[in-house]
Amino acid sequence: MLPYVFGVDIGGTAIKLGAFRTDGTLLEKWQIPTRTENGGKNVLPDALDALRGWMARNQVTWSQVEGVGMGVPGPVKMDGTVSGCINLNWGEQFLPAVIQELEPGISKFRVTNDVNAATLGELWKGAASHCSSAVMVTLGTGIGCGIVADGRVMSGSEGAAGEIGHFCVDREATVPCKCGKYGCLEQYCSATGLLRCAKLELFRQSSRPSSLRDKKRLSAKDVCDAAREGDALSLELLEELGEKLGWALTAMASTVNPEVFIIGGGLSKAGEVLLRPIAASYRKYAFHAFRDTEFALAELGNDAGIYGCAKMVLG
Amino acid sequence: MLPYVFGVDIGGTAIKLGAFRTDGTLLEKWQIPTRTENGGKNVLPDALDALRGWMARNQVTWSQVEGVGMGVPGPVKMDGTVSGCINLNWGEQFLPAVIQELEPGISKFRVTNDVNAATLGELWKGAASHCSSAVMVTLGTGIGCGIVADGRVMSGSEGAAGEIGHFCVDREATVPCKCGKYGCLEQYCSATGLLRCAKLELFRQSSRPSSLRDKKRLSAKDVCDAAREGDALSLELLEELGEKLGWALTAMASTVNPEVFIIGGGLSKAGEVLLRPIAASYRKYAFHAFRDTEFALAELGNDAGIYGCAKMVLG
Repeated sequence: MLPYVFGVDIGGTAIKLGAFRTDGTLLEKWQIPTRTENGGKNVLPDALDALRGWMARNQVTWSQVEGVGMGVPGPVKMDGTVSGCINLNWGEQFLPAVIQELEPGISKFRVTNDVNAATLGELWKGAASHCSSAVMVTLGTGIGCGIVADGRVMSGSEGAAGEIGHFCVDREATVPCKCGKYGCLEQYCSATGLLRCAKLELFRQSSRPSSLRDKKRLSAKDVCDAAREGDALSLELLEELGEKLGWALTAMASTVNPEVFIIGGGLSKAGEVLLRPIAASYRKYAFHAFRDTEFALAELGNDAGIYGCAKMVLG
Repeated sequence: MLPYVFGVDIGGTAIKLGAFRTDGTLLEKWQIPTRTENGGKNVLPDALDALRGWMARNQVTWSQVEGVGMGVPGPVKMDGTVSGCINLNWGEQFLPAVIQELEPGISKFRVTNDVNAATLGELWKGAASHCSSAVMVTLGTGIGCGIVADGRVMSGSEGAAGEIGHFCVDREATVPCKCGKYGCLEQYCSATGLLRCAKLELFRQSSRPSSLRDKKRLSAKDVCDAAREGDALSLELLEELGEKLGWALTAMASTVNPEVFIIGGGLSKAGEVLLRPIAASYRKYAFHAFRDTEFALAELGNDAGIYGCAKMVLG
């Protein structure tokens, strides 16, 4: 195996880059802004320029690079076709060919979606390095989900494997999700969803005391902080989030039966006060064959992606 | 590639065997009884004797056989470890080693669970031969589920991938399932579940006319037959089954995003009157990225398993 490998994690705001030795050592990580204008046509050239800059500074040539792994914020099919990335203004494109054209020196190129990459990163160097399969759920503005099963990142026939955010968890719901459907998991269990539920409860139980009422501009983090400090209403809100998410995860376990569920994203900084009700609900609803699946908090934060991207190349 | 391949589909009552040319031609299929006594220790020797008998009759030696694929009625891990098969009285065993010991002449051996094998069979020669990934759900006494995703049968970390029968579809349910939990999919959507729901509705709506009331010993098939003849109550029962199952399948699509859902098992003989409400519910609840996933009825019946077993060997 050649001595170097690159991980490139493309986000809507920043491109995160990592230069690794193929033994897994991270040599340097850095980031550049994502230029999404003009249909995002600068994104890949910018990323490759950043790699070439590092190579020049470190006197490394492509003949010493095992390959480049890339994560993108959108669905990716098994052959490397990106179906489109709204946040990058990208339409459908066959990324391996685009990269080959831009930099013929790259001998091995791998691409998957950003959450799949992060899941692989956590499995390699983070929360679940003792496991070989995982479902990772990221709770942020929306809900992301990456799946590594039977040793491989899952793509799905349309690159939509792991699109759990719009699974309907309440068939009687009447408030529409931004996707146009009702009762989507994301409406309850993302950071945005938690905040929405908190506001509803504060209004509905208007005479009930809660430290949340002291906040000028309530955030999901406020709810998690208040729960950690024992605020009863906030604890109940996280219980209800855990009830729905843990239950939805039993459906994923029924399908791919991972060794571990990893909870990541901004909301996961809440720690145990969030993880406990998710795992409790999961164990209440899970079939006995997979009732003991592990739960872990993500550990690598924003670095998970570059690690996973590099790992894709290493196999 | 050598000229012959065998598929061996082991069930609790019969072992189904198929002798194929490696070009996919089925040369002969037959079955022998499954002897489950004494911890099921005769099952594998009987199956191998049956193969040897065919080989002797057809003057074929192991040196001409590409391999043997096997389906068993229980969870199988990726390495070929069978976690146990209740219907065969088997405990955990590492099947590749057991087979190697019993018949060293077999050069390639593959094993998966019976529904995974049937799914692969339908993808190869049946309902979905134009597809490369599928989730197949069999509705019989219980609910079975096989998954072929990204070109491979899914095992899961405990061999429990596809164990969807005990996914909770009603968190308020109070009637226990035989697994000890409540609101399991199987309690509503298997043949047994449909019959249970039919009896409940006939009792609950005791003054409502239905041709089902004329039956001496009601069966799930009676409900399907009556629905096909336009019995309103029976049609509603299949609507309700479809509502729950179609919705549960959106959770599976959110996870593995298959090209096609195949509905099999005894109940699937009902045909379109069953398939229509399942697909309609699926499209109502599915996220747009996979709302158009195909639905098909299984076509190979009891032969699906031997086809899929042979296909595992052929790759």
